[in-house]
Amino acid sequence: MALLDDLKWRYATKKMNGQMVPQEKLDYILEAARLAPSSSGLQQYKILVTSDKALLEKIKGIAYHQNQITDCSHLLIWAAWDGYSEERVTNVFNNMMDARNLPHETMDAYKNSLLSLYAPLGQEWQAHHAAKQSYISFAMAIAAAAEQKVDATPIEGFIPEKLDELLNLKGTGFRSTVILPIGYREEENDWLVNMKKFRLPKEEFITEITINDAADI
Amino acid sequence: MALLDDLKWRYATKKMNGQMVPQEKLDYILEAARLAPSSSGLQQYKILVTSDKALLEKIKGIAYHQNQITDCSHLLIWAAWDGYSEERVTNVFNNMMDARNLPHETMDAYKNSLLSLYAPLGQEWQAHHAAKQSYISFAMAIAAAAEQKVDATPIEGFIPEKLDELLNLKGTGFRSTVILPIGYREEENDWLVNMKKFRLPKEEFITEITINDAADI
Repeated sequence: MALLDDLKWRYATKKMNGQMVPQEKLDYILEAARLAPSSSGLQQYKILVTSDKALLEKIKGIAYHQNQITDCSHLLIWAAWDGYSEERVTNVFNNMMDARNLPHETMDAYKNSLLSLYAPLGQEWQAHHAAKQSYISFAMAIAAAAEQKVDATPIEGFIPEKLDELLNLKGTGFRSTVILPIGYREEENDWLVNMKKFRLPKEEFITEITINDAADI
Repeated sequence: MALLDDLKWRYATKKMNGQMVPQEKLDYILEAARLAPSSSGLQQYKILVTSDKALLEKIKGIAYHQNQITDCSHLLIWAAWDGYSEERVTNVFNNMMDARNLPHETMDAYKNSLLSLYAPLGQEWQAHHAAKQSYISFAMAIAAAAEQKVDATPIEGFIPEKLDELLNLKGTGFRSTVILPIGYREEENDWLVNMKKFRLPKEEFITEITINDAADI
């Protein structure tokens, strides 16, 4: 029951104590993020990591002054592709084929069908699609942190355009999507730590369906 | 190293053998999905589950005929909110406050700031945002399945509008986002099982940054 126990233990820590996360635990969390699956295996995102207090202060200023950003040990920032291009997709698939000792052409038909599916959906859709993949990686990092008994606060509350500007992401083809301060809870000053975890009851969250629930299409 | 081992073990299974996943393992996977964090704790999604072969056949037809959909034990379908409304958000927050024995008004200021942040971004952005939350839950289910040595294939390759129509989601305020067949690999007929897992090398995937990498804003 390890993962379930970890998910019950974790919560969106509201107050951290500044204690540093050991390098091997940081590496573990980042490795889980790296091993996450992504659509077509494209890994349409990367992670920026910082523990630089001066930089964290600046980031806090564009993240509604959430104090975990400066009280954390490290801040992990996911940045995802701002769109799909033939060059980008080809580059990843070529590297994938090299790793598997297969000719580059192996992926041509799949690649072409992918690009022709994505192209008409437009760049905003594509950026959302790439960002969604980064959330899978983000989730694996959250699970890994909990397993390592490292606290983490999933944060979307920042101004992405400003963070992109601060981190010089503009023009790189990446956009910030989510951030994750990791560190250790300061229980006595955390209003959430003793609050009951709230989730939809299983009966509302999960619905078993059969052919009788389906439309006749 | 449990989660890392699980993430190395798992892969997007291409051929399943039809063997059923025991109820307790299915429940475990669904519970991990339920415990996943979501933006503002709104849990803007739910999961439909089916093992009905007739329904799976129909779903396969709108999912590029991927055989895992009919060879799996169960198919998990995430469906996320198609947008945010005051009514929806209020309803969740009221239930959350009830669970925590706090007055409903506790969340009023936060709720109003959230709604005024989301409203101008429009319904498509809101639907993408809710969908992104479902990817966190999706990832927790993938991790839980791997921990239980249950194979799973993350699938986005289906026509969401058709699936919504088939599952009578239209008009319910939910849209299908991702699907996950779970079951057991049939190694001898799975072209991917022995392929090298391909991920970006750590040096490319992770970048450590400091204030010196930041723009002066």
